[in-house]
Amino acid sequence: MQNFTFYSPTYFVFGKDQENETGKYVRRFGGNKVLLHYGGGSVVRSGLLDRIKTSLDKEAIPYVELGGVKPNPRSGLVYEGIELCRKEGVDFVLAIGGGSTIDSAKAIAAGVVYDGDFWDFYQGKLVEKALPIGTVLTIAAAGSEGSPDSVITNEDGMYKRGATGEGFRPTFSILNPALTQTLPAYQTACGITDIMAHLFERYFTTTKEVEVTDRMIEGLLLTMVHEGPRVIADPNNYEARANIMWAGMMAHNNSCGVGRVQDWASHDIEHELSALYDCAHGAGLAVVFPAWMTYNYKHDVMRFAQVASRVWGCNMDFANPENTALAGIQCFRNFLTSIGMPATFAELGAKEEDIPKLAHMAAYGDGRTGHLGGFVSLSEEDIANIYRLML
Amino acid sequence: MQNFTFYSPTYFVFGKDQENETGKYVRRFGGNKVLLHYGGGSVVRSGLLDRIKTSLDKEAIPYVELGGVKPNPRSGLVYEGIELCRKEGVDFVLAIGGGSTIDSAKAIAAGVVYDGDFWDFYQGKLVEKALPIGTVLTIAAAGSEGSPDSVITNEDGMYKRGATGEGFRPTFSILNPALTQTLPAYQTACGITDIMAHLFERYFTTTKEVEVTDRMIEGLLLTMVHEGPRVIADPNNYEARANIMWAGMMAHNNSCGVGRVQDWASHDIEHELSALYDCAHGAGLAVVFPAWMTYNYKHDVMRFAQVASRVWGCNMDFANPENTALAGIQCFRNFLTSIGMPATFAELGAKEEDIPKLAHMAAYGDGRTGHLGGFVSLSEEDIANIYRLML
Repeated sequence: MQNFTFYSPTYFVFGKDQENETGKYVRRFGGNKVLLHYGGGSVVRSGLLDRIKTSLDKEAIPYVELGGVKPNPRSGLVYEGIELCRKEGVDFVLAIGGGSTIDSAKAIAAGVVYDGDFWDFYQGKLVEKALPIGTVLTIAAAGSEGSPDSVITNEDGMYKRGATGEGFRPTFSILNPALTQTLPAYQTACGITDIMAHLFERYFTTTKEVEVTDRMIEGLLLTMVHEGPRVIADPNNYEARANIMWAGMMAHNNSCGVGRVQDWASHDIEHELSALYDCAHGAGLAVVFPAWMTYNYKHDVMRFAQVASRVWGCNMDFANPENTALAGIQCFRNFLTSIGMPATFAELGAKEEDIPKLAHMAAYGDGRTGHLGGFVSLSEEDIANIYRLML
Repeated sequence: MQNFTFYSPTYFVFGKDQENETGKYVRRFGGNKVLLHYGGGSVVRSGLLDRIKTSLDKEAIPYVELGGVKPNPRSGLVYEGIELCRKEGVDFVLAIGGGSTIDSAKAIAAGVVYDGDFWDFYQGKLVEKALPIGTVLTIAAAGSEGSPDSVITNEDGMYKRGATGEGFRPTFSILNPALTQTLPAYQTACGITDIMAHLFERYFTTTKEVEVTDRMIEGLLLTMVHEGPRVIADPNNYEARANIMWAGMMAHNNSCGVGRVQDWASHDIEHELSALYDCAHGAGLAVVFPAWMTYNYKHDVMRFAQVASRVWGCNMDFANPENTALAGIQCFRNFLTSIGMPATFAELGAKEEDIPKLAHMAAYGDGRTGHLGGFVSLSEEDIANIYRLML
């Protein structure tokens, strides 16, 4: 195991009706004037925004609003948010929504207290300071509610890039599984896929003898395999929603990723797709990850056989472990199809003729040096080959 | 899943040589004058105490010392520590050792800033405030390095009781697995048993459909089953030590126990044994827990069959799930024996004739109301019956 530090100071408030306590937690974590940041109409239509406003009113905490966050959140709205916060003297950013809204809120929170261009953070500068952030989560997926990460698309070139740093950990996050019950099945399935992808990015490692994090990751994957189909079959299954929601947080707060090399090439390969075609991130991952697995499993057949056996229940083929490894990948494909996820480039609206451009952007775009991935180092040519496996 | 809050703001520093950075972390978390709290000679003999003093000197942070913490730490030393801290103007308590030392440090840290008797916390008063606490962990066992809990024995009556509260979460904890390599095999095995017991206390629940925490607990148990024998066979196996150390923290910081009823009767039943006979807590648990399981498995045969199948690899007997449940308990007994743990009252130095007294103290001692346990509610008679199963 590699040396590491782990710090997850977010206060999690989990369960039914907890969003009605938002004002109390904003007060507790030092907010005196709040930016309410959210996406489209569903937060308004469902009455959630009003319930949160009522809870802030109860604490006599003033607020300003900035809606309009889109999936694959854009830099333009971040600049707008930074300006608004400065003008209004906002000292606390509250995200109401899913990963896109939280990531946008994080970018604003860091940008407000930074003299330079906030995009510096998305080109590698560590986020040490930001306004305090709170979240009310409405979709279990990105894990941004407990993570030190954020992903934003720069409209100047359509680069989708990530930033990280302890300043990005929310001070509190309110997780009410019931708020996710109204999601369309497709978005629920995208969330399930994203959570599983966060686990696989950590699972495929070159670090030896990391049983504790292997087993934790497998446990969370098994949870998704059990609960995913249950929630697709019955969107109102609160218990399944609750298990998925906590798994989503645990999958990405990194307690199961510490001390080991992680991969993350699949996320980078997917980000080019959602940046260019504006597909859902989870849907993109459903297409990318099995292709990445198929292309790379030979680098560590036994690790792929291990997850096939432990998570997918494949019988181990001791004479030909490769068969088990491949069977596991097929199980993952079948699972994704069963919850309604796409399997091909065409289903995402992506085009074969864009592959050279996509591969080049993934490998070299916006300051990258030509290689992706910690488990296997992929060149531009490898990345193009992986895109071709998605056709 | 029940509603819950989860807050674990400890900064974990994990890996080789990290104890040499202690001074830096004391500085970061606001310590200006430190109490160095530790147990017996091994911390001194190994040179660990000197390395920590050197790191404090580098930061020009003054300190006073209080050694002498014993396993099953006593109230007398806590009172002494509180007085010393007040006299010397100490504002940070640094525990160097295992669970006993950390628990004693926590009691001192809470007592210094409290006007009443610190024992109030061990009779149910929530610990909201304490001096900041740091730890340098030397044994993977109690999980106290990341937990909001502490257990102290009151010498006035030899009651062993627990206290809890967010004030007890350490500000930072340094976990260097190499520091545990010099432990005697017996103590290592006691630690392994304690970690597994923390997991089982959470696993046996009346809460339905808690797959995510079930799977996390099972993953951590599987880690212990894999790494336990490896570290007993080779005390210098750093990787096995590292996996056990992180599992020990994860087992007790409660991320795998949230939202579900927990049991904790076995801990309470054991505490009477270690309070009266001064046996090692882990050794006591090795005797108590299988007996508790045998006495109670009929309350939820399928849950016992589940852990037998998922953790111990027992074949499910679909016609008679009870057989699988019992096979799992036997696997746990065999595992404990294989790592050198005791199985009977006699091996602990406990006496059959004390059973009525032990059961009465467990059920009614020091303000208790006659029942123990969340999974099954045990009466004084039940507790006596469980003690008898240990003969």
